[in-house]
Amino acid sequence: MNNKVKIAIDAMSGENSPKKVIDGIEFYLKKNKDNFFYLYGDKILLNEQISRTKLVNQYSEIINTKDVILDNESPLAAAKRGKESSMWKTIESLKEKRAQVSLSAGNTGALLVMSRLLLNTINGISKPALAALWPNQKNMNVVLDLGANIECDEKNLSDFASMGSALFRALFSNQKPKIALLNVGLEEIKGNDILKKTYSILKNNKIKNFDFSGYIEGNHIMDGNIDVIITDGFTGNIALKTAEGTSNFITKNLKDSLNKFSMLLSYYSLKKFKDKLDPRKYNGAILLGLESPVVKSHGSTDAIGFAHSIDVCSKIVRANLIEKIKSNLITVD
Amino acid sequence: MNNKVKIAIDAMSGENSPKKVIDGIEFYLKKNKDNFFYLYGDKILLNEQISRTKLVNQYSEIINTKDVILDNESPLAAAKRGKESSMWKTIESLKEKRAQVSLSAGNTGALLVMSRLLLNTINGISKPALAALWPNQKNMNVVLDLGANIECDEKNLSDFASMGSALFRALFSNQKPKIALLNVGLEEIKGNDILKKTYSILKNNKIKNFDFSGYIEGNHIMDGNIDVIITDGFTGNIALKTAEGTSNFITKNLKDSLNKFSMLLSYYSLKKFKDKLDPRKYNGAILLGLESPVVKSHGSTDAIGFAHSIDVCSKIVRANLIEKIKSNLITVD
Repeated sequence: MNNKVKIAIDAMSGENSPKKVIDGIEFYLKKNKDNFFYLYGDKILLNEQISRTKLVNQYSEIINTKDVILDNESPLAAAKRGKESSMWKTIESLKEKRAQVSLSAGNTGALLVMSRLLLNTINGISKPALAALWPNQKNMNVVLDLGANIECDEKNLSDFASMGSALFRALFSNQKPKIALLNVGLEEIKGNDILKKTYSILKNNKIKNFDFSGYIEGNHIMDGNIDVIITDGFTGNIALKTAEGTSNFITKNLKDSLNKFSMLLSYYSLKKFKDKLDPRKYNGAILLGLESPVVKSHGSTDAIGFAHSIDVCSKIVRANLIEKIKSNLITVD
Repeated sequence: MNNKVKIAIDAMSGENSPKKVIDGIEFYLKKNKDNFFYLYGDKILLNEQISRTKLVNQYSEIINTKDVILDNESPLAAAKRGKESSMWKTIESLKEKRAQVSLSAGNTGALLVMSRLLLNTINGISKPALAALWPNQKNMNVVLDLGANIECDEKNLSDFASMGSALFRALFSNQKPKIALLNVGLEEIKGNDILKKTYSILKNNKIKNFDFSGYIEGNHIMDGNIDVIITDGFTGNIALKTAEGTSNFITKNLKDSLNKFSMLLSYYSLKKFKDKLDPRKYNGAILLGLESPVVKSHGSTDAIGFAHSIDVCSKIVRANLIEKIKSNLITVD
């Protein structure tokens, strides 16, 4: 038990929970048993689900909670009224040091507010940020902030650079990642004042847990040449959702164009294509900058997608993400 | 001649010009002869190209220019040194009332700077904006600003709403378009102060050449439920380029997944798919808010893409775009 990563799971949030959650844990445990799960939720419902699977039963403990946060609740109202909810209790387990990382597929806004209410910010970090994984031509990159902070200054963006680099190193490779600032052009004079100031800070940064590559434009996010892309939460959220919308638009049009006959003939090729772009592989946004990491699964993902976000939880704890962030803070005068 | 739309064309800018330009005009003239073209560029090169086609010869006049703006020139430097260039002279023809609309496939930044130097802003409009056409599930929509203004206030965004609506009515249907503000959520409290102020102006607007639908998120831009989408030039530029990058990423992966055999078998289906999403059909960004419209073609498009942007030029003059903008100004206290 001592060598296991302790993961707190909000078992009630997201579509088809708690069934999806238990199926996801089972799927993950079949490959990797080095984790232990604290399941927060309705004990009766959870026991019903767990009775199907010895494996989950063996590697988890249920903590009964009496309330659930709904997807359409206002984040502030949810945080105010939801102190007995599975989401609140899951995050609280980090404060209590019962678990090392928490995972929920619920209301993102409520999760952000509760996390900030319950957990301390890492000393020296100005604002926590939400990071996500994007597929690219070579593998995956990290983009942050995706919406935790609508307005950001140069200190916030510089913090995102050190936190994003630490996350990349924790998840993929311990090599120095290449990082860039999202902007409307590549020249040093492009963009607003905050971007120009951040450019100068990152260019002159002496910590060097990353290589700064300057600016990047939206059409190159997925090229695979940059590992960590930094932006404010407003722009990041618009970029992420626009990419999602474009992807849906294209795949819908592709489906509409292919008739049944050619679908059948191209079955294996299309399957390969679908597998490569499977959004479940990129499931898991990570709130960085608090004393413990808080991971968010997509609400509508299935058990396999949920298992991928468990993998993210496990990896970032094993790689000492929080220590990596602490030892690479950028000081801004 | 009097009933013809007079279009000034920068025949030297963009890849493969002037050949592409002349081929594009010829392609367009085969379908529609209601326009006359003033071609700005090197007389010798242009005559060489035109000698191949009687049609273009009959419907155009060459004005010799001695200089060309390069794609990699800084906009300000280009505007300063380029007063004899084909781009400058093309825009100047609007000031001189020789032409009613201008078209260039050259350096976007230089085109914006020259246009603002040479042409007056429409009385009551705070800033010109660059609008583009996006494909959606039903047809096309208009998105602006795409990068002319990095920072925008509520008056700018409100002007974009009236100009974008006028453009949509000129290009597609004279019905009231549905417009929305690009934001990170749908609730009235989402976003920054400028968005909230703009929301309130558009909601209470009495001009009513559009129906205001509130906020829209990035993943719904291409759904086809909103006709005109309003955003600042920074966000719009990131969104447009991110969509472009996502589209390239997906189609590249699709190509890599399909083997030659299934490509062949699905030839007609894939052709249908490609035709529907053909970016040449959406070619043509429109600088709105000046006394005459300035149209920008993608530099790397081919003759057919260039012909599509000629179509945009012709349509917006015939539909009295500038008058439509003038008669629908929103007053902001």
